[in-house]
Amino acid sequence: MSRLADWTTRKMGKFTLRFQPYTLEMNHVFTVASFSRTSTPVILTELEYEGVVGYGEASMPPYLGESQQSVTKFLNKIDLSTFSSPFDTEELLHYVDSVEEKNTAAKACIDIALHDLLGKLMAQPFHKIWGLNARVIPPTSFTIGIDTEEIIHKKVLEAEQFKILKVKLGLDTDKMIINTIRSVTNVPLCADVNQGWKNKEQALEMAHWLAERNVVFIEQPMPKEQIDDMAWLTERSPIPTIADEGCQRYSDIIGLKHVYTGINIKLMKCTGMREAKKMAELARALDMKVMLGCMTETSCAITAAAQLAPIVDWADLDGALLINNDVYDGMKILDGECHLPDRPGIGIHHLFTNT
Amino acid sequence: MSRLADWTTRKMGKFTLRFQPYTLEMNHVFTVASFSRTSTPVILTELEYEGVVGYGEASMPPYLGESQQSVTKFLNKIDLSTFSSPFDTEELLHYVDSVEEKNTAAKACIDIALHDLLGKLMAQPFHKIWGLNARVIPPTSFTIGIDTEEIIHKKVLEAEQFKILKVKLGLDTDKMIINTIRSVTNVPLCADVNQGWKNKEQALEMAHWLAERNVVFIEQPMPKEQIDDMAWLTERSPIPTIADEGCQRYSDIIGLKHVYTGINIKLMKCTGMREAKKMAELARALDMKVMLGCMTETSCAITAAAQLAPIVDWADLDGALLINNDVYDGMKILDGECHLPDRPGIGIHHLFTNT
Repeated sequence: MSRLADWTTRKMGKFTLRFQPYTLEMNHVFTVASFSRTSTPVILTELEYEGVVGYGEASMPPYLGESQQSVTKFLNKIDLSTFSSPFDTEELLHYVDSVEEKNTAAKACIDIALHDLLGKLMAQPFHKIWGLNARVIPPTSFTIGIDTEEIIHKKVLEAEQFKILKVKLGLDTDKMIINTIRSVTNVPLCADVNQGWKNKEQALEMAHWLAERNVVFIEQPMPKEQIDDMAWLTERSPIPTIADEGCQRYSDIIGLKHVYTGINIKLMKCTGMREAKKMAELARALDMKVMLGCMTETSCAITAAAQLAPIVDWADLDGALLINNDVYDGMKILDGECHLPDRPGIGIHHLFTNT
Repeated sequence: MSRLADWTTRKMGKFTLRFQPYTLEMNHVFTVASFSRTSTPVILTELEYEGVVGYGEASMPPYLGESQQSVTKFLNKIDLSTFSSPFDTEELLHYVDSVEEKNTAAKACIDIALHDLLGKLMAQPFHKIWGLNARVIPPTSFTIGIDTEEIIHKKVLEAEQFKILKVKLGLDTDKMIINTIRSVTNVPLCADVNQGWKNKEQALEMAHWLAERNVVFIEQPMPKEQIDDMAWLTERSPIPTIADEGCQRYSDIIGLKHVYTGINIKLMKCTGMREAKKMAELARALDMKVMLGCMTETSCAITAAAQLAPIVDWADLDGALLINNDVYDGMKILDGECHLPDRPGIGIHHLFTNT
């Protein structure tokens, strides 16, 4: 509890919003194609209505443009006093979305708290409110960052419980990384290139090389601006391509139909659970694949995202495993399988205050 | 109460399904482009789980191919005993949909009862569970059937509370009907042609003629098979075209994007509330207009459909006003505006048993 800062409290009509900064400490230095880091700043939120409290979280990996400062600024602009009920969810979140452009993580920390609150008011876990069966969630992947052969070898051995691994690629070490992993395990892999490949012919060659090594899809192989190259690659790739940086929100999806095979939905990119659910359904309607991803997050945002996991093709929900100072008890990962709590709302408990 | 038949009761595991035939008596002979009738057969259902009962209904206008016999046969095939909870909504309704092809009204009477049950278990009206604001429902249209000049004149005078009227067209009396109505009122009209126009050039000419007389859209102007003609008409029409017979279910929508401007969603066509909600959202994502329609129905199916009304462009929910032997107290229409009950589930009460 001593690690938590004081809450900033904003009373607005029937709602009270509380928030505080928190810094997630990562177990390992984490390297992807564009940067390395050892911590992730987040904002924790609570939204209270008639004595019931919902928990939320915004996670701000530095390269995405949001920060504790920007989220705090955003939350100080929000005024919910004109809303009389959290059940006016559509209008309330439409208002939150309209306050500023972007700020998607800031918006998500309200959306998540609101969903947790709503679920508690209805006394049901949110996946049940959505009518989804928590027993059919795909196993989560566990992420292996870009690293030396020795450390990758060690990390893969440590990750033996996982039925699928996600590998960060995009530098000149790609083949070394895959070969190193394949010297240890034959589990299916997902490759996340984080826009690292710039040439479509080389990307296609790598797609074939990876497919032969049981890589099941490639996430964001090329820069998101290279739409035509991506469409060219997707048409020819032996394995699905998934948009991550290339697909932020609901309104992006229709334009991506022939550019990628599927999309990676993350609450911090898309403003939260309500939009994420709509994105999954729209992608399905367009015959696109759906992956559910995360940032480095506490079990709050992870468990919130996991409510949607029963209707996705691939789950990548290891964000809370990468840190050593989680704040909540929520979704459990056992033998690589996701186990959602059967508790109202998003179903998390605060680890320090036991609520 | 004496008018109601005995319930057929089927116990299946933790669920009990009850159903009975009922015949809706219509206030007026009802004529559209293809037929006339004075009554509508329905099946009323109850779905019970742990002592909580949800109400449902199937309405079977004879020209759509279902009947009390076919619905009864379908309901006798359903076995819910493998489902332990109504919260496994997605899987349960997927099962119901898989039992037989078509039978959409039969499927809807289970879907509606299930949603009513779920809402009661969560102690919230279903529009609130969906996060929708019941105070922003569009005014409902009221339907004027094809009739003589004298009777149309009389019906329009009787319908003075309505802020929008729906007119059945498609025979050679179209201009007479519109002129008769316009001699009484200037309220906006929706034209429902029920596939009555066969020639695209004449249809376009009529679209212009109607637009000049404040007709706001044309529903199913041409036969649903004439896809190319419809696309031609939609591209040129000064007012939106709406698919009714041409759009039954969710999977139809994507193919209709450039064929019609929008779709008419009816629970009896699309298997119920869950699919209807997805259809509305998908149509929106495709920049299509959404109309919410109904058959002749009791306040059960009408109030169920109305849960979705906050997110549609046009509501046509007059089905229970056309009958003189409603069984439920539900959505109220006052001065043409829809007022949803603020009660759990779909929010209806049985008029005879007072439950």
